[in-house]
Amino acid sequence: MAGNTLGGIFRVTTWGESHGPALGCVIDGCPAGLELAPEHIRRELSRDVPFHLLTKRIEPNDFQIMSGVFEDRTIGTPIAIVIKNSKHESDRYRKIMFTPRPGHADLSYRLKYGHVDWRGGSRASGRTWISVVAAGGVARRLTELCGIEVRSALTELGGLAVDESNLEQRVRSLAAQAEQDRDATGGIISVTIRNLPAGLGAPAFHRFHADLAQAILSIPGVKSFELGAGLRAAQAKASQFNDPIVMAGGRPTLQTNNAGGVLGGITVGTPVVFRFTVKPTPSIPIPQQSIDLRTRAAASVSTEGNHDANYAPRSLVIAEAVAAIVTTDHLMLSGYLPHDSLVPQQQRLQTLPRR
Amino acid sequence: MAGNTLGGIFRVTTWGESHGPALGCVIDGCPAGLELAPEHIRRELSRDVPFHLLTKRIEPNDFQIMSGVFEDRTIGTPIAIVIKNSKHESDRYRKIMFTPRPGHADLSYRLKYGHVDWRGGSRASGRTWISVVAAGGVARRLTELCGIEVRSALTELGGLAVDESNLEQRVRSLAAQAEQDRDATGGIISVTIRNLPAGLGAPAFHRFHADLAQAILSIPGVKSFELGAGLRAAQAKASQFNDPIVMAGGRPTLQTNNAGGVLGGITVGTPVVFRFTVKPTPSIPIPQQSIDLRTRAAASVSTEGNHDANYAPRSLVIAEAVAAIVTTDHLMLSGYLPHDSLVPQQQRLQTLPRR
Amino acid sequence: MAGNTLGGIFRVTTWGESHGPALGCVIDGCPAGLELAPEHIRRELSRDVPFHLLTKRIEPNDFQIMSGVFEDRTIGTPIAIVIKNSKHESDRYRKIMFTPRPGHADLSYRLKYGHVDWRGGSRASGRTWISVVAAGGVARRLTELCGIEVRSALTELGGLAVDESNLEQRVRSLAAQAEQDRDATGGIISVTIRNLPAGLGAPAFHRFHADLAQAILSIPGVKSFELGAGLRAAQAKASQFNDPIVMAGGRPTLQTNNAGGVLGGITVGTPVVFRFTVKPTPSIPIPQQSIDLRTRAAASVSTEGNHDANYAPRSLVIAEAVAAIVTTDHLMLSGYLPHDSLVPQQQRLQTLPRR
Amino acid sequence: MAGNTLGGIFRVTTWGESHGPALGCVIDGCPAGLELAPEHIRRELSRDVPFHLLTKRIEPNDFQIMSGVFEDRTIGTPIAIVIKNSKHESDRYRKIMFTPRPGHADLSYRLKYGHVDWRGGSRASGRTWISVVAAGGVARRLTELCGIEVRSALTELGGLAVDESNLEQRVRSLAAQAEQDRDATGGIISVTIRNLPAGLGAPAFHRFHADLAQAILSIPGVKSFELGAGLRAAQAKASQFNDPIVMAGGRPTLQTNNAGGVLGGITVGTPVVFRFTVKPTPSIPIPQQSIDLRTRAAASVSTEGNHDANYAPRSLVIAEAVAAIVTTDHLMLSGYLPHDSLVPQQQRLQTLPRR
Repeated sequence: MAGNTLGGIFRVTTWGESHGPALGCVIDGCPAGLELAPEHIRRELSRDVPFHLLTKRIEPNDFQIMSGVFEDRTIGTPIAIVIKNSKHESDRYRKIMFTPRPGHADLSYRLKYGHVDWRGGSRASGRTWISVVAAGGVARRLTELCGIEVRSALTELGGLAVDESNLEQRVRSLAAQAEQDRDATGGIISVTIRNLPAGLGAPAFHRFHADLAQAILSIPGVKSFELGAGLRAAQAKASQFNDPIVMAGGRPTLQTNNAGGVLGGITVGTPVVFRFTVKPTPSIPIPQQSIDLRTRAAASVSTEGNHDANYAPRSLVIAEAVAAIVTTDHLMLSGYLPHDSLVPQQQRLQTLPRR
Repeated sequence: MAGNTLGGIFRVTTWGESHGPALGCVIDGCPAGLELAPEHIRRELSRDVPFHLLTKRIEPNDFQIMSGVFEDRTIGTPIAIVIKNSKHESDRYRKIMFTPRPGHADLSYRLKYGHVDWRGGSRASGRTWISVVAAGGVARRLTELCGIEVRSALTELGGLAVDESNLEQRVRSLAAQAEQDRDATGGIISVTIRNLPAGLGAPAFHRFHADLAQAILSIPGVKSFELGAGLRAAQAKASQFNDPIVMAGGRPTLQTNNAGGVLGGITVGTPVVFRFTVKPTPSIPIPQQSIDLRTRAAASVSTEGNHDANYAPRSLVIAEAVAAIVTTDHLMLSGYLPHDSLVPQQQRLQTLPRR
Repeated sequence: MAGNTLGGIFRVTTWGESHGPALGCVIDGCPAGLELAPEHIRRELSRDVPFHLLTKRIEPNDFQIMSGVFEDRTIGTPIAIVIKNSKHESDRYRKIMFTPRPGHADLSYRLKYGHVDWRGGSRASGRTWISVVAAGGVARRLTELCGIEVRSALTELGGLAVDESNLEQRVRSLAAQAEQDRDATGGIISVTIRNLPAGLGAPAFHRFHADLAQAILSIPGVKSFELGAGLRAAQAKASQFNDPIVMAGGRPTLQTNNAGGVLGGITVGTPVVFRFTVKPTPSIPIPQQSIDLRTRAAASVSTEGNHDANYAPRSLVIAEAVAAIVTTDHLMLSGYLPHDSLVPQQQRLQTLPRR
Repeated sequence: MAGNTLGGIFRVTTWGESHGPALGCVIDGCPAGLELAPEHIRRELSRDVPFHLLTKRIEPNDFQIMSGVFEDRTIGTPIAIVIKNSKHESDRYRKIMFTPRPGHADLSYRLKYGHVDWRGGSRASGRTWISVVAAGGVARRLTELCGIEVRSALTELGGLAVDESNLEQRVRSLAAQAEQDRDATGGIISVTIRNLPAGLGAPAFHRFHADLAQAILSIPGVKSFELGAGLRAAQAKASQFNDPIVMAGGRPTLQTNNAGGVLGGITVGTPVVFRFTVKPTPSIPIPQQSIDLRTRAAASVSTEGNHDANYAPRSLVIAEAVAAIVTTDHLMLSGYLPHDSLVPQQQRLQTLPRR
């Protein structure tokens, strides 16, 4: 079944497996006239591995913008970006091709497809989300035009709270521990979208946070989504949980933000804040219980090689990209961004080439 | 913006405001030949108010199937269901039409639309979800054909854990307390989908649980979504969190179900289990801080009338409906249900009318 | 399979069979703040039977706007319109329930669905398009806001060219002839959309005329679609067929309009002009060759009762409705109409109720 | 606006401009387990220029399958195909960058986008449809599995009827004439889809022929669409136009095929037959009347270089590709093809890699 497109009118379609020749995306629905240089994509791709101690697969992310851009400005046609995969040896995957890894998509892919690419994580690999990060670079150009800021932060790593002050040390100790334990851990990430206009989202099924959640829960390893003070909602009383409505800067706003920026599915002007948990990377050197697909007998499987001790940090930049894409789609749906062109109508005939 | 349709190929479009003449839905994509009597809808609608002590708006739910069904079987055309609204007086809403209620969609709707229906909760009212419950009655007929069971349960109510043994007592004490406090509370609901085939969902953006989450987070007041042991994922180690793969009944399955039935976005054959929090009903008699839209001065607002002391129980049947609809859509997308007709091709010319 | 929704972001979903209790539509995506009174729908429905001599099924079209409108203005939520069906006797259909009518959908519906509603034309009946005409009333309110005019005209009826001067007489003679021949005829309709902005449509698969064609060819009995001087295109030379580009009123435009208002799938500012053929109404009193579904033996079928001698005139108003809906969708997609609200943002808090 | 995807659940997204580094497509929704070798794509691409005398742009069509295929079988993930563009000089386009060519999309693109790629036909070039031809190679693999045959034929070229007997000679004389006239011509193409199952298509807006028409009218230069004996429908009487229903080979079918294989929007089992006109290639060496965008003064424009004297023959293979894609989408929507995998469920765990 088709399921590789994110967005309704700002549409990002991704393709590629972890061990194929390349990965990529097609961004359909970006208005013409947006300044877009390779640098805008490169800066996002370079953020791919924020805490390199926790990961072993680091790639240079050679990419090319194949269409949709002329003289560093978009022309309204689909933007295709192709990112080369390095040559990865697949020998260690060959050894486990008949023993699905616990916690991985190996078994569910086999049950769905029958014929699968055993050379690596295939389409389930976090690696494939680099194409979303590239598309996020385009979306971010558009959210920035609207003055919107999308920021993510690790709030918990390997079971311990982290912030800027202790993060680096926590990463080091976690990397050392993972090396020793041969195990992996997860984390919690918080994302904040600031300066969003009020009025994004729809009353019934395209609530702003629901569309965000769908996209965020599509990121590999993400197991929960919480809007604002969402988990506390179950224990609170209405009189405490409801955010008082006050005037500020001449506009009505909320005094607190338990709502996480969304009321009735529609943004209210306060920052949209959400959190999600990332599970421990399932691939670990410790032997785990599985079966041999040929014989159906019990079998043990362990994964050596360039896996991450903690995938959560790599989800930071993916989550920002995803949030920027969903936000852009809603900005266009609500008319905060033009669908066709950033060039004003009266100037369209005068827009002459640069060179 | 349009946003009132749930589903890709089994599509439910809902309409109606809390104080309009009627509410309804159109179900497009139901195969022909399904036995569907008014009773199948009625039994779902009658479950609308499971713990009536916690609610004050109870309606008889008069409904009519307007199309798509002939001689108690579907004919493949869209099924329209219309549910009458009782005549509700709107006088108490008239008093607060200029003071948006904290925790409600009043403010965000105004900022999005300008012109709004002030006579009640309008499209944001939980009442409007009765049309989803009706559509869920159709979806459930289809999931039942596949032997699938969708069940929800309250696990926490007003901050206290509940189960079958203490639930009734907890409801009584909560109702009494709400009467006294003039406040409202929320809860946690767990949903389990059993006997799902393996292979539902897609690798990237239509992960089975992501589509579920989008629909569940669209229910009024739902603030979080957790798949399987999702919140624990952040603290666990991979060696504990990964579910061992074992054979059972001749098939590979998972020994535990931390995954919540989904790996890599695709069902693996174990029950799909998810939980969500429902916030306290925002409308309470206690005065709350707001503004007067005419003067922008601070104003106090309190809501008298037939509001719920705890909306969570009413979300039980909505969540089941939503889960049944999303499941049906994926069953069709993955070929477990025919799209056109349940009548085998060789018999289509012979299917004669009953009367 | 689902297939009852027209439009991408201005979405019209229709439901209802010819002999069910009612027909209707849900219009999702209409911005708030649009003046919309029942009169705007009624005036379209009353145009349903422009040349009553050619038709025998005339219904009063009792309808109700069920949602989406408050105090005669839209509120941004889905607009549901329900139109009652008169009680029609189905006895004459009972006689032919086992003998599919040539030229009708009887056979194809049976082959697709197996279980069908034999009481009349069911979903294939032209009658069901009255719900599109109602939705067209909403769309026309929006196209009129943009100064756009959608007009249809009969250019050929029963094989003879017609215009305003000879139309009435042609209708009379055709009706008399049909009575005598017990046969039916078709016609050709031309539609012109004036004052469209340049820039509607997309380069690849949502070309403006392609979306129009899909919608027009969905009208019962429509067998062809021609844009501008489309049929002549095959015989012409480029030097004659290309429309010279000239300045007029300070803007570039086309001197002629062989293009029919669209170049490269995108409107260019000249009127969009298209034509389509309507086949003869298939239901006729003359016996026609068919089979008996029970025995598979050859059988003759003839249809008595309230069928149209020529359905083309009823397609006039449907074609306008369809063209208005497609145009509205594209106006919104290209930013000429707001998606959320016609009320300017600064005024949204001040928009107070009328009563 | 987004508009580069064809299909609902078998989805083809295309990208690329005529003078960019490459063109391509992403095919999302192809089931796993389909044998797909580069040869299956190559054989379609090689049909790109059937009557080379009429065209001057002939490219080798170097391509690479980037994803979705492993060991020559599909794996259920999106299939990305990238086709290199040769280096084309754009000097002759530079000369006319301020004078939009009549009959071309130059003017409408400028009015829609403002910033455009002037180096050639950009996204409006017929060249960009090579990516649809590639995707058609995948679709054809699936239609062939169902025994379906899609065939196109030129029936008129430059105003004269052609068939197999006189085609070659007609092409030669047309090429010679174009050289001499410095003008261009168009043609008429007929497409037949055989062995389609009955029951494809939907009653209202996804009528089988309407979806075909939308796709066919998206091909550059196509100006009309006619289903079966569609143009004759306007002049015929019902008693002649209705196709008698008869038994043949134990099945009900139509004795004639004026319907073109579709009744009520749904296929009936007879061949689907449609025709369309292709306009003369607008780019000709003869000077044509236009304006200078800088000064708005009248200006003459003529195009030298590798343009086609008649584009119709290149539309043959595109039309087949488009028809195969639409057919595949409907086959999947009606359950004639699995959505996830061609590998039977019981064999999915046993499907072992080849090497």
